[in-house]
Amino acid sequence: MLRGLLLSGELDWSLPTETLLHFAARAEHVERAIRPALAAGTWVVCDRFADSTMAYQGHAQGGDRAAIASLTEMMRLRPDLTLVLDLDVAAAMARLHARGAPADRYERLGEGFFARVREGFRAIAAADPARCLLIPADRPEADVADAVWQAVRTRSGLPA
Amino acid sequence: MLRGLLLSGELDWSLPTETLLHFAARAEHVERAIRPALAAGTWVVCDRFADSTMAYQGHAQGGDRAAIASLTEMMRLRPDLTLVLDLDVAAAMARLHARGAPADRYERLGEGFFARVREGFRAIAAADPARCLLIPADRPEADVADAVWQAVRTRSGLPA
Repeated sequence: MLRGLLLSGELDWSLPTETLLHFAARAEHVERAIRPALAAGTWVVCDRFADSTMAYQGHAQGGDRAAIASLTEMMRLRPDLTLVLDLDVAAAMARLHARGAPADRYERLGEGFFARVREGFRAIAAADPARCLLIPADRPEADVADAVWQAVRTRSGLPA
Repeated sequence: MLRGLLLSGELDWSLPTETLLHFAARAEHVERAIRPALAAGTWVVCDRFADSTMAYQGHAQGGDRAAIASLTEMMRLRPDLTLVLDLDVAAAMARLHARGAPADRYERLGEGFFARVREGFRAIAAADPARCLLIPADRPEADVADAVWQAVRTRSGLPA
C-alpha cells in the first residue's frame, strides 16, 4: 500500500517524508518477509533495497545522504551481495517503453533524472566493492543472466 | 492521512514500520507547516512532537530507542521548550472517557500501556531539563493553564 502511494504520484510528499515512507515500506518488507525467510534458512533475492533510496532520493533528488545512510544502518540488515545492472539511460528508457506498462511516478521523471540515478548507483557500487558488483547490462538477456549467475557463484563460494 | 492510518488500528504494522510512519507524518508536518511558520517569525505550538514517539514506540512498546533518537536528530528541529503535563494514569483515563470521543488505537491499549508511556515522558523530561518541564496536571484546568503560561513566560524571557 505504501509503495503504491509512493509510485502513483497522486500525493505531493516533501522529500524527507518520501524518504521515510520508502524506509517504512522497506521495514515492513524486512520484518514480515525477509527476516522470517532468513531465519528459515532461505536465500532472499530482492530487486531493490536501501541502495535504491540512496540513488533515487539521495543522489537523483538531492536528499540528505547522511540521513539515508543512518536509516539504512537502522535496519540492521545488509545484503551479502548487491548486483547493479548498469545500462546507458537512453537504452534503459527504450526497454522501459518496449514493456508497454504505464510509467510510474519515477519513470515519468525523464532521462536527466535517470542519469543522476545511474550515477548514484555507480557511486554506491564503487564505494563498497566488497558488497557490490557492477554488471554491464547493454547485452542480450542471456548474457546478463550468465554474468549474474557467475557473480553469485563466485561471491557465495558455490561450485562452478 | 498517515496519522489516520496509524491511529485507526486497521492495519497491523510491525513496530519499526509504525515508528517510521510516525516520523514520516511528522516530517510532512515539519516541512509543510512548521518550517514555513518559523521562517515567517511565527511561534509554533505543537501538542505532540518526537518525544511522543520516544515515549509510545520507544518506552511503552519497547522499540529501538537509539533509532528513535537518530530519527529525531535527522529532523534538525528541536523545540525550545517542551511542557510535559503529568497526570496519574487512572485520572487521565477518566478524563479521556469523560470526553466521550471514541478511543483511538493507542487509547484502547489500556492502563498498563499508559503507565509505561507516562514513565517514558518522565524519563525524557528528567534527561533533558534544559528543554523540558514537567507540569503537574492533577489540578483544575485554570491552574494548569497558569502553570503553562508562567513556564512559557519564564523560559522565553517575556515580561511577567
